[in-house]
Formats: sequence, structure tokens, C-alpha cells
Amino acid sequence: MGRRYDTVSLLSDLGTGDELIGVVRAVIADLAPHARLLDLTHGIAPFDIRAGSLALARAISYVPAGVVLASVDPGALIDRPCVAIEVADGAGVLVGPDNGLLAPAVAMAGGAGRCVLLDDDSHHLGAPGSTFAARDVLAPIAAQLCNGIDLTELGTEVDPAVLVPGVVPLPRDEDGTVVCEVLWIDRFGNCQLNVGPDEVVHLGERVRVRAGDPAAPTVRSVARVGRFADVGVGAIGLLVDAYGMLTLALDRRSAADELGVAAGDLVVLSAGDDQPDPGVPTPISLRPTQR
Amino acid sequence: MGRRYDTVSLLSDLGTGDELIGVVRAVIADLAPHARLLDLTHGIAPFDIRAGSLALARAISYVPAGVVLASVDPGALIDRPCVAIEVADGAGVLVGPDNGLLAPAVAMAGGAGRCVLLDDDSHHLGAPGSTFAARDVLAPIAAQLCNGIDLTELGTEVDPAVLVPGVVPLPRDEDGTVVCEVLWIDRFGNCQLNVGPDEVVHLGERVRVRAGDPAAPTVRSVARVGRFADVGVGAIGLLVDAYGMLTLALDRRSAADELGVAAGDLVVLSAGDDQPDPGVPTPISLRPTQR
Amino acid sequence: MGRRYDTVSLLSDLGTGDELIGVVRAVIADLAPHARLLDLTHGIAPFDIRAGSLALARAISYVPAGVVLASVDPGALIDRPCVAIEVADGAGVLVGPDNGLLAPAVAMAGGAGRCVLLDDDSHHLGAPGSTFAARDVLAPIAAQLCNGIDLTELGTEVDPAVLVPGVVPLPRDEDGTVVCEVLWIDRFGNCQLNVGPDEVVHLGERVRVRAGDPAAPTVRSVARVGRFADVGVGAIGLLVDAYGMLTLALDRRSAADELGVAAGDLVVLSAGDDQPDPGVPTPISLRPTQR
Repeated sequence: MGRRYDTVSLLSDLGTGDELIGVVRAVIADLAPHARLLDLTHGIAPFDIRAGSLALARAISYVPAGVVLASVDPGALIDRPCVAIEVADGAGVLVGPDNGLLAPAVAMAGGAGRCVLLDDDSHHLGAPGSTFAARDVLAPIAAQLCNGIDLTELGTEVDPAVLVPGVVPLPRDEDGTVVCEVLWIDRFGNCQLNVGPDEVVHLGERVRVRAGDPAAPTVRSVARVGRFADVGVGAIGLLVDAYGMLTLALDRRSAADELGVAAGDLVVLSAGDDQPDPGVPTPISLRPTQR
Repeated sequence: MGRRYDTVSLLSDLGTGDELIGVVRAVIADLAPHARLLDLTHGIAPFDIRAGSLALARAISYVPAGVVLASVDPGALIDRPCVAIEVADGAGVLVGPDNGLLAPAVAMAGGAGRCVLLDDDSHHLGAPGSTFAARDVLAPIAAQLCNGIDLTELGTEVDPAVLVPGVVPLPRDEDGTVVCEVLWIDRFGNCQLNVGPDEVVHLGERVRVRAGDPAAPTVRSVARVGRFADVGVGAIGLLVDAYGMLTLALDRRSAADELGVAAGDLVVLSAGDDQPDPGVPTPISLRPTQR
Repeated sequence: MGRRYDTVSLLSDLGTGDELIGVVRAVIADLAPHARLLDLTHGIAPFDIRAGSLALARAISYVPAGVVLASVDPGALIDRPCVAIEVADGAGVLVGPDNGLLAPAVAMAGGAGRCVLLDDDSHHLGAPGSTFAARDVLAPIAAQLCNGIDLTELGTEVDPAVLVPGVVPLPRDEDGTVVCEVLWIDRFGNCQLNVGPDEVVHLGERVRVRAGDPAAPTVRSVARVGRFADVGVGAIGLLVDAYGMLTLALDRRSAADELGVAAGDLVVLSAGDDQPDPGVPTPISLRPTQR
């Protein structure tokens, strides 16, 4: 017998528009009635492994000890065996597809311990077709981990180095400018960049931002601020967010709409002219904010 | 006293955009604190009894023993008394409107046992108006069932045959073609048909699909495949899904968008010419996928 | 030690599209494992304090004893210290921003008891930036209240009169007409008004409704009815809803679409001519229903 777990935290692209994730939860609840189910989100865009892996990485250090079930890109759960990865000396086990989804969270949790391919289907649910592996593979595996089965009984142990790695984009320095990327746009339109505050110190307190459509970019002078309310009316602020990353933000409006950017877009930061933004209207973008 | 239940599974068209389903859950949690609440989905489109009944039928065999509370079409909960239907020798009780919503799930669970009209309002919550029967009737009834009240104390026992039946569309054979229907489009655009694999054996391995706008249908030659990844780039596959039904699918794209179909649309399957799909671009459809 | 609580009910504008509210729940689950988490809604539109406060007021009398965590307008949680307000002789504690969000619910629950500013950050989570106070302030405070810490240990006790009040719009009488407002449009398009049935008795059984764009208002004659099904085809009904307020409703269609109104819009009610609505088609509105 292995360690028993009390909590299963769930993240997926299954949505809540129909019963898909509800059935995943029902399977766990049926097989491991003592387990508490904690939904992180099921709103990851279909097939968006990058967004799912970043959301899981942002959440992981707040998740209670236990099992994490993550499913993004349903086909990926069928193409190759799913995996279970132990972290934090067994305080947690992440189960999901071998498509890079889990990798950034595993790294945030201190790296992979024991690692198993879920290739022993005696632990899975039988089903007529194989299209719903979150229900038929991940859910019963999560429940059995809660019930104390040892990881190594679930399939073939492998070296974590053989798994598909995650892709975390890194900023680069070009002639004194910082070429970075919008990692995440939250529901309020704040644009988290893949840059920490230490990496832009040389640009000064006022930073020039080039973003949006490369053919007609939006260029704005933004000030480093401490909180949303310090951003002036009509201006954009650059602040350190609750994850320690730089975020482009407006006060109670969407910076993503204002800048016309979506998650994954490039943003170029350069030294500002230390003049306040003249407040010239920016080109109107019809591109919807990705949320 | 009747049997006590520990789980209430919930399915509705109440959405999660405001507090409606939250209040239903609060009422149950308040009256039956020991009960575990399991949300199947609250994203059924408003008034869409058909979609709700199919989602409940897909879920029911995975739902833990206990009470199922289902609410689709709020007016239907007021027009006639709601019902409670025992299934599986009392292992489960479904409560909901008498509008056909529960019928396919009851059938999947082996048919109706005892059946009661919830016409005794001494078991309901009082309210100024009757617009929110999921809160005022179904929630307290679900809680009281969890607390061990016997079904027959809740209202008038009736023959299940008097209840409104469910409508499950059946495919039909026309001159060797199979005229079927899109039962369900999932979040990934996979189109579940109301046909099982045995019903199309005579059409061969390659099947001709006519779908979408009858005046300008999309016609495609599709191959029977085992999983999403076996569908070629630009092609559409026909596979057996996790419910045992045939599903039109693309690899990591929406078949519903590609074919221009919505749930409920007719699809005609006929014998293919055993030639691979030439990959001619299909007419572009501006019709949004129903999800 | 103070009273211990078993339930945390949650309402926010954080959405479920990403992991924001999931992490708030994870923090509470981690710090107070015994607490049951009850989601009211996280679908309040970003920054919409009015909608959030009305949803919380509609829900509060159904919420189990315990802690209520409410977060609308993330910036507001940083601009000023958040607050914890005792209600019902300590049966409940509401924690949230000091922006009026809690005020109508506190009033519905019988008014404020002890009241504390959450200005002692030794009870908060540390974070690199302050952008996510629902996670870093409200969640640990809610957990500590569940664990029995007394309210007054969490910060500075204040007179509730110093808090930002809620704004509940009142109808007004103008020359025998009732000028009111759409408080809330539910998922089904029913339009709750800020008027109770007693306030329109003098208008008679048939009421004239002026609503929508003031330049081209929709004018309809509506009948007082008891339930959705009593509204005739093509007609609009005025009924007492489950909260005791008057609601404009259609049978199984959206009254908001039919009238072209959104939450917050003015509606003028006057005495009708006691003639049934001729059923003249109303101007088509392209304005989407706010849900």
C-alpha cells in the first residue's frame, strides 16, 4: 500500500457547458468517497496545452497535498499512455497526458520524483470507445491513488526525462530592448508578461511598450506603478503582479483591449522618454480580448 | 423512515452566471449538511429539454448512488407537479420536472420503480412567487430524501406510465442510406450521431456523409477510424466514441465547424466510394458551432 | 477563541475561465480542511459591484450559517482594507472589499454586528505583488474564521457606519406612473424590477410598460399573471417572482430580448387601457441581453 490522499484538484479544457467534467468528478466520488474534489478550472480553451500548463503552474503552490488531475487536449490522452508523476517527496501526485501539460507545475513543485506510465489498463474503466480518457483512465487512477494504491502498481516506471517537456517562453534582450511575450490575460484584461521586475531595471521607471499587430503596433509609454489605482486615467501601468511577474494593467479596464493583444503575442519593452504618456488615442482594435 | 442518501448530483439549465444554482446548492447544504453535492452541469441551454435529457442519460451510469436533482425549463417545474422517481431498487432517486427530462436516464438506469408527484407543498419552501421551483421544491425534496424521508411521504404515488415520456430520436434506413441526427456536439466539436457501429456495417469502411444546410449540404467521404489521431489532416473520421455511438471527428479541430452542423441536425450516411477524400475545401460556414 | 464555522460560501467576479477562484478555494481548503465550500456564483461581470451586491442580497437568506467570502472589483480589495462584518449575532461573517458589495446582504441579514478592517497583514498570505487580494487576504481570513479565530484579532474594529454604503435603486412615482429600473435579468431573460406588487396596485390589472432605448422606446401593454404559462403567446406578463419583486416575463422566451433592455435600464409603468396587447410586432433590437 502507498500513501493515501484526501484531495483531488482538477484542471481541464473540458468546460462546464455539458456533463464531461461532472462525470469525471462522479467517477472519483464513486470510487473514493472520502476524497474532496477541488476544481481549479475547466475553462482552458480546447487543446490549449500552453494555457493549461501555465494555469497549473500558477496554481500548484496553493493546491493542498494530494492528487492533481489535469486534462488538456483529449486526443493527447489517447495518443500515448498518460502519466503519474510524484512531487514533493510524495506529498502530491500529478496525473495527466504526456504532452507537456504537467511539466511547468512539476518544476514549480520541486521537480519529478517517481514517474509511471499509466499503461496497465486493468486499473482503467472499460468503455466502448477510447475518446474519453479523462473519465476512463485519469479519474479511476486518481481515485485509486486516494485509496492508497502505490504509484508503481499503476503501470511502467519511467525516467521523467523521457516525458514530453513543457515549453515556457523566455524573454530575450535585443540591443537594450526586452522582447517578451504575453503569458496570460486574466478576466480583467491584465496582461502578464514573461518578465520579472529585475529584468527591466535598466529601462528606468517609464517604459515604452510596443504591442499588438506588428504591421500597426500600438506604442505606449507606461509607468511602473504599485497597484491598479496608481495608474492614471487613460494611462497604462506596469506593475508586479501576485505571481512576481510584470503585468500591463489599467485601472478597472482591460489592458488587453487597450493594447489589442492576445495571449502569446510578442511585446517589446524599451527605455521610455520619462515623459508622461500624452494620452493620444490609440488605434482602435476590433480584436477581442482572449480570456 | 426510508433509505438515507449521501450524494446529490445536479444537472440544470440554470447556468453559473448568477447565483441561481448556488442557492439551490445552499438550500440542500443547509437542510442536509451530510450530503455531498456533485455538479454534473448547469450549462444546458435555457429550456433545452432534449439536450438536458441526453446529458443526464450519458452521465447516469457514472453517478454515485443517491439523489439526482435535474431542472431544465423553469416554467415546466410550475406547470405541473414535479416528480420523484426511484431507480435501481431504490439505490437512486431522480427528482425533476415532469417534462421528459428524466425519462432517458431512468430508462438507462433500468426503468422506474416507485414514482411520486411532488404535490404536497408542506415539504416545499415558502416563497412570495412560484418562479423558482428548483430552489423551493426540488432542493428541499432532495435534502429530505437524503435525510431519510420515504418517497411516498412527499406526495401522491403514481404509475410512471402517466409521466411525460422522453423523446430519443431513432435513425431510419432509406434505400440503403442511414438518415440520422446529430445528438450532441461536445466542446471539441465532435458530433455524436444517434447511430451505433452495427447499424452502418453495410456501408463499408468508407462512408459518405451529407450534412448541414439542406439547400447547400456539405458532402464528405469519411473513413472509419479508431481514434482522433488516425484521422488524416484535412479529413473527417467516423469513430466509436466513449458511449458506444458513432461520432464525426477531426484531429484537434471541430468537426461541427467543418461540417456546418448543430445539435439536432439531420445527417445522411451512405456507402462511400472507397476513395480517399480528395480534400477539396468545403464551403465555409458562418454558422457558429453549438456547444 | 471565537466561534468556529463549517461553511464558506463564495461569490465573485473572478470567473471560472481560469484558475483564479480555484486557487482561492484551494487556500481555504488547505488552511481549514473541515470547511465545506459552497460556490454561489463567480460569473458576476468584472467590476460590476451593483450586480454582485444584488446577487448576494438575493442569496443571503438561503446561505448556511458560516462565512461568506465576496470579491467583486479586484482593485477595490487593494485600494482600502477589506472588511469582515458579523451578522445574525455571529451566525455569519461576511468578508470582502469595502466598496458597498456586502451592504445590501448585511441589511437583508438584519444589519451589521461587529465590524473589523482587515488591516493586520500578519493574517494574510505573503505575495510578490498585491494584485490578488481574494487569494492573499480574503481566503486566509475566511479559513481562520472557520478555525475559530475571533473577528477582533484580525484587525481594527470599526463602526459599520464608516463603511461604504450599498446603493439600492428605489422606484419613484411621477404623475401616477412608476419610474423603476431593471434590477436583474436572469439567464432566461426575465427582468426583475425594483418594485413590489403593492407599489403598482393603483395601475390596475393591465399595465403599460415603456422600456429600452429612450429615443425609440418599446411600449407594451402587459397583464398581471401568476406564472409563466399564463402569459399568452406573443404577450409579456408581469408577475411576482420568487423574491417578491415584479418581473417582466415571457413564456419560455426572453423578455429582455423582446423589450430590448439590460440590467440597470429604466422602465416606466403606467395604467394600461385594459385592452389586450394588439400583438403589433415590436421594433427588433440587436442589443444582446445582458445575463
